[in-house]
Amino acid sequence: MRKLLSSLCVLAACSAAAKEQPHNIIMVIADGMGPAYTTGYRYYNDDPSTKAVESTIFDKYLVGMSSTYPAPVSGYVTDSAAGATALSAGVKTYNGAIGMDVNKQPVESVLERAKHYGMKTGAVVTSQVNHATPASYLAHNEYRRNYNEIADSYVDDRIKGKIKFDVLFGGGWQYFIRDDRQLVEELTSKGVQYIDTYQQLSDLHNKQPALGLFADVGLPHALDDTDRHRLSTMTKAATNLLANQDKGYFLLVEASQIDWAGHSNDISAAMAEMDDLAKTIEYLEGYVSKHPNTTVILTADHSTGGLTLAAQGEYKWQPDVLKKQLHSPGHIAKLLLEKSFSKQQADELFNLALTQAEYDALLKAKVDAEQKLIAYEQLSKEEQGKARMPNTSRLVAKIIKKLLDTRSNTGWTSGGHTAIDVPVIALGKYAEKFAGHQDNTQIAKKVFKLLDKYNKSSK
Amino acid sequence: MRKLLSSLCVLAACSAAAKEQPHNIIMVIADGMGPAYTTGYRYYNDDPSTKAVESTIFDKYLVGMSSTYPAPVSGYVTDSAAGATALSAGVKTYNGAIGMDVNKQPVESVLERAKHYGMKTGAVVTSQVNHATPASYLAHNEYRRNYNEIADSYVDDRIKGKIKFDVLFGGGWQYFIRDDRQLVEELTSKGVQYIDTYQQLSDLHNKQPALGLFADVGLPHALDDTDRHRLSTMTKAATNLLANQDKGYFLLVEASQIDWAGHSNDISAAMAEMDDLAKTIEYLEGYVSKHPNTTVILTADHSTGGLTLAAQGEYKWQPDVLKKQLHSPGHIAKLLLEKSFSKQQADELFNLALTQAEYDALLKAKVDAEQKLIAYEQLSKEEQGKARMPNTSRLVAKIIKKLLDTRSNTGWTSGGHTAIDVPVIALGKYAEKFAGHQDNTQIAKKVFKLLDKYNKSSK
Ligand SMILES: [Zn+2]
Ligand SMILES: [Zn+2]
Repeated sequence: MRKLLSSLCVLAACSAAAKEQPHNIIMVIADGMGPAYTTGYRYYNDDPSTKAVESTIFDKYLVGMSSTYPAPVSGYVTDSAAGATALSAGVKTYNGAIGMDVNKQPVESVLERAKHYGMKTGAVVTSQVNHATPASYLAHNEYRRNYNEIADSYVDDRIKGKIKFDVLFGGGWQYFIRDDRQLVEELTSKGVQYIDTYQQLSDLHNKQPALGLFADVGLPHALDDTDRHRLSTMTKAATNLLANQDKGYFLLVEASQIDWAGHSNDISAAMAEMDDLAKTIEYLEGYVSKHPNTTVILTADHSTGGLTLAAQGEYKWQPDVLKKQLHSPGHIAKLLLEKSFSKQQADELFNLALTQAEYDALLKAKVDAEQKLIAYEQLSKEEQGKARMPNTSRLVAKIIKKLLDTRSNTGWTSGGHTAIDVPVIALGKYAEKFAGHQDNTQIAKKVFKLLDKYNKSSK
Repeated sequence: MRKLLSSLCVLAACSAAAKEQPHNIIMVIADGMGPAYTTGYRYYNDDPSTKAVESTIFDKYLVGMSSTYPAPVSGYVTDSAAGATALSAGVKTYNGAIGMDVNKQPVESVLERAKHYGMKTGAVVTSQVNHATPASYLAHNEYRRNYNEIADSYVDDRIKGKIKFDVLFGGGWQYFIRDDRQLVEELTSKGVQYIDTYQQLSDLHNKQPALGLFADVGLPHALDDTDRHRLSTMTKAATNLLANQDKGYFLLVEASQIDWAGHSNDISAAMAEMDDLAKTIEYLEGYVSKHPNTTVILTADHSTGGLTLAAQGEYKWQPDVLKKQLHSPGHIAKLLLEKSFSKQQADELFNLALTQAEYDALLKAKVDAEQKLIAYEQLSKEEQGKARMPNTSRLVAKIIKKLLDTRSNTGWTSGGHTAIDVPVIALGKYAEKFAGHQDNTQIAKKVFKLLDKYNKSSK
């Protein structure tokens, strides 16, 4: 009989109880993830031993697309600051603005509105936590590169009683542990738990506020990190910390480094970041099934690099070589520069059998880079001041990226951003509200509406 | 009282009558139209005198996206034949296949199914009517370049009583009026009306079958045609001819030359083709409101050219210069080669004030091209046989396209196709069935389902 009652509870009473659970909104921004990235990931992720091309988690929940243009003063191509401000506050602004409009007036973000309603708030990113995207939810500054000011504001706001975050995970030691100000100490003295390794995430148990800084600036590339799915790991921890709050929570999750891989035209790093993002959304899919009052929205602020899946007139894109990579091109370059390496050792670094021509090109890149450095070192102090010290690992990495582009037949047109519309993916409660084409500002407006609705109905 | 009855009729009886109207499906394929094209068109179409960026007809009805990969034997990057066969028959095949599977067996197209059910059928394209996309709906051939065989099959099928089209508009004199076979005559002798100018479209009144061939191969570029919106004009005529059929109709509409502009990395031509497509969909929006049992689906078979909206690290895309163009780069090149031209004459050709450097680059391109031709002409007959006659207008057009790319900051990575997912746009009845991510084969499967449903319910 007890069993029967419990079944009935599942069917009736408990579903009524579920309706009264608090509402959570998880906004995921994949910085730089234009449609070439989500498409490319499908083929990167494809299991060639099966006949079908496997759908991805992005395919499963695609609902629409978004335009990304900034305020007219900045043309049609946005930067991450204006893009994030559109997504955080629903306002078109100039490139470089953090949570400010074209008149440099602060504009309320959805995270601030959530906090106003007494919800918990958090941000989880793979860049430094004071980078453009999280900053546009947590701060207001006229210029994105004022990193110290932005970090300071997170702490100063808290001192003034305007708490912005209950959970904040990402990189940024150099901005939070400085000679002129010890922001970590200031925060811990205010009762904020602090951790600086992924391992410690499990030590936080169910307590916040918590700050986790895991790197000096951004986290290592997914390809080079001790945890290749660190965004997923941090997101799990953050949602566990924030779950079961009286009034629910708003969490920003940013896959920050898809954009960085795009800027450096690095397709193997880009796909590894996409894989971390996919694991994060897969985790959130399970989370939503357990917490059905949660809305998850994933979009990008813009696309980066002018990435194209095929190039040079050839009808092929071959990502198999990318999936095999164990290190980023930058990391491989550093290893190659450390010592001499045989063909076999090079093959091991790339996890594939290089052609003799590829191996020779790498040797030549190394010699060229080293000679440039020697030439620089032979300059007088004065001449050195005018020139720039050659970055040998960057020079070698460039050849490695070219090798991987050629193998995969990947194209790039820019080290910057492009104007193409970006995918909108949504799951959980009210996912359908994000269907079709929408401007990025409309996404923020829809989130504001949901926040208002939840918090009026709960009164 | 009569008025009241008529109102009631609107509310009840007439809506019941509307349900009994025949169902029409209009499948619009924008060949090569990846998401950079629909996005780019928004900014090309933007009125800079207004503060807002105007939404396009594509934005209004975007419902999802589609993957485009061909059968595994052809990798992840499709050509137009395999792409069209996926959309027409729901079958993945090898690049080059027209309405055939990987085993070179013919596969039924949605157009054939519609005809099987006694519906009227038609195709309206800006390529030759026997080009890959229309051919994949109307024919079966193992290789897309068998143009004569494909054209013959349209006629031979009809002679055998297997009528494929009631309306067919596009280009293709050279395939239908040949020394070895006079397909136009064969068709007119079978009662098919034939026209060869746009003006004659209005002479067809409400009678089909009708064949309209308006060019030797493909139609002129939209930018150079006597009617810049000839796809829209032909679509109006076709829908008028096919409207009010007992059993409804299936119509294929193809904006064929977005792809051609993409292959030649010609952004001004591409945007003009997009404008013709936009006018076509705007027309169909009105048509659907009058014929609510009509489903319109717009998608692309793939993206072409690796088009990116910004390049070279610069955060700008400036389409204003493209909108001003009165002729395609190829046409301007021909005019420039005909005679000497002053800076002012060049400015008039481009409809903008060229910089002195741009004017000088054009003069140099012309001289270079002419010198290449002179060098070729000075070769012996034997040497000429081995070399290739320089195409002077193509050489000059290349410099013109570069000028427009630089002005607009447009990027390209390929003269071929890329693997990026493409937009799916749908309006009218059952538009929602095409929402979210779907594979191109699923689009055909959904159309088959609608055809089956309509024709079972009408029995
Ligand atoms: Zn960026
Ligand atoms: Zn093509």
